[in-house]
Amino acid sequence: MWNYPIMPTGQMNPYNYIGYNPPTSTNPYPKFPQIDSSAFLSPFTFIIGDIIIQNNVYIAPFVSIRADEGSPFFIGSNSNIQDGVILHGLKKQYVTVNNRNYSIHIGRRVTCAHNSIVHGPCLIEDDVFVGFQSTVFNAYIKEGSFISSGAVVTNGVTLKPNSFVPPGASIDTQEKADKLPSVPIDKEEFAKIVQKVNQEFPTSYSLLFGKNRCSCGVAW
Amino acid sequence: MWNYPIMPTGQMNPYNYIGYNPPTSTNPYPKFPQIDSSAFLSPFTFIIGDIIIQNNVYIAPFVSIRADEGSPFFIGSNSNIQDGVILHGLKKQYVTVNNRNYSIHIGRRVTCAHNSIVHGPCLIEDDVFVGFQSTVFNAYIKEGSFISSGAVVTNGVTLKPNSFVPPGASIDTQEKADKLPSVPIDKEEFAKIVQKVNQEFPTSYSLLFGKNRCSCGVAW
Amino acid sequence: MWNYPIMPTGQMNPYNYIGYNPPTSTNPYPKFPQIDSSAFLSPFTFIIGDIIIQNNVYIAPFVSIRADEGSPFFIGSNSNIQDGVILHGLKKQYVTVNNRNYSIHIGRRVTCAHNSIVHGPCLIEDDVFVGFQSTVFNAYIKEGSFISSGAVVTNGVTLKPNSFVPPGASIDTQEKADKLPSVPIDKEEFAKIVQKVNQEFPTSYSLLFGKNRCSCGVAW
Repeated sequence: MWNYPIMPTGQMNPYNYIGYNPPTSTNPYPKFPQIDSSAFLSPFTFIIGDIIIQNNVYIAPFVSIRADEGSPFFIGSNSNIQDGVILHGLKKQYVTVNNRNYSIHIGRRVTCAHNSIVHGPCLIEDDVFVGFQSTVFNAYIKEGSFISSGAVVTNGVTLKPNSFVPPGASIDTQEKADKLPSVPIDKEEFAKIVQKVNQEFPTSYSLLFGKNRCSCGVAW
Repeated sequence: MWNYPIMPTGQMNPYNYIGYNPPTSTNPYPKFPQIDSSAFLSPFTFIIGDIIIQNNVYIAPFVSIRADEGSPFFIGSNSNIQDGVILHGLKKQYVTVNNRNYSIHIGRRVTCAHNSIVHGPCLIEDDVFVGFQSTVFNAYIKEGSFISSGAVVTNGVTLKPNSFVPPGASIDTQEKADKLPSVPIDKEEFAKIVQKVNQEFPTSYSLLFGKNRCSCGVAW
Repeated sequence: MWNYPIMPTGQMNPYNYIGYNPPTSTNPYPKFPQIDSSAFLSPFTFIIGDIIIQNNVYIAPFVSIRADEGSPFFIGSNSNIQDGVILHGLKKQYVTVNNRNYSIHIGRRVTCAHNSIVHGPCLIEDDVFVGFQSTVFNAYIKEGSFISSGAVVTNGVTLKPNSFVPPGASIDTQEKADKLPSVPIDKEEFAKIVQKVNQEFPTSYSLLFGKNRCSCGVAW
């Protein structure tokens, strides 16, 4: 039912490592990421397991997307995963989108900024901004929300659409989540500018690295 | 008394870099890590200097264990060092275990979660959980303690066994350390589940990468 | 006017990636970093675009210096950029030094400690210490200041010389910045010791990796 090469599996080149998750009691079946050919993976990225990465996603250096415990992950079109970001999930805890279970589901035009952590179970809807050094873990972030630098959103809370989480805030109860203000206009505009810049990167970086792409998205 | 190859030293392959610390006025003698063959080092790990890594330790991608200033480091069996974690130490400042000096001594079944920093001088006993984005620097953490996301424990404090540090807390005086509550049962169970998952990784990842191991723990 | 190789550009070896920024609407001209031959770049560093790195700078593993949006960057002599640090900048927002515009300008003997983020527009003068896990974004940090672990300095504030930012503080208004105390003597001494250790690294690491340097600073 599944195709498991004996050794070494996965892409291995100086640019990045893309491969199967290792077989464990939780995840006995190794799966290979499905990465749209218009996505761009920077040098020094590590991506393993049951992961869908849609069109025009930009993955920066030193990103770990490690679906070896919680699984699967989904990253929607035009999202960007910036330097040092980590995606990982707890086993057997899920969010549900269109009747399918995911450990992590990230929508379209989402920004995960430098050094942020998105840890499943986690559902992030379209047009969300996840700030520098912040953590989103066991949370449902509705569309258009803005999480500022160093904030933590956790403990199963749901953020209503366009919620604004201040810098360094710890949103760990539903009560705190419910009281969050709307995103100020300057932050909304900031998030849009960041999106615009990052949506150019997959094409421009691919030109820099070459025109040929393998089935998993690596250019040469 | 020590064996110092002229150039380039250390393992260099697409997976990781393991090598000698560079000779400096503080650390004139280059030493090579001693890594048990049952430990697993992910691609994109950097490990140099006088370091002991015991059996069944899991080291995730983008981990830097850099014993080029404070030294030596010790990581006990069944511990896991997750993505983006940094171990580094100040020169000539030590913790003492069994009458030996260490810059960093990490016990058994310790979890250092994503993007955390453990900076010597630092002593972490068995069964401690170091949370996402947290920092432990110049501290003694007794067994079974749980440090939550984004917390900082520093300034030479000692945490009594089973201390619970809340998210984002700054524990920088002994008075604050002494007032910490015990670890809640749900966090204790969480830490155990994380241990169970990570203790499977060295064997399962090694199968994925190959059956042969070099003396320093790299599989192919 | 500019020299743009067709494909693959940049240095590519198992040690690090140094290359051109990709052409975008903001930055249509790919530029290559200028790195002094006495600087040292660790394995697993990613450095692209219009960047000047002066003499005896130490760049640790897993550092991303990505001048693909805001540009140019400048890193002055004897500074150190530690493990996991990210330098990135917003487009078309500048600081000015000697009548020239920069996205990021870092002076001499600056320490950017583990996992910190320096995000342009940003001006950091000589002898500043940027602590673990901290963020400096859209700020002007005058000489000798000390930013403690996990702090955030942002929103266009200016820190007067020798300002001390406490652990975890959020300095996001000029009023807060103006009230900051001077750097305590023990922290000032700490910053000097860190400088002394790191200023030895470029020479000592270069000996470890080889005597020959390419024009961009990579040793072999």
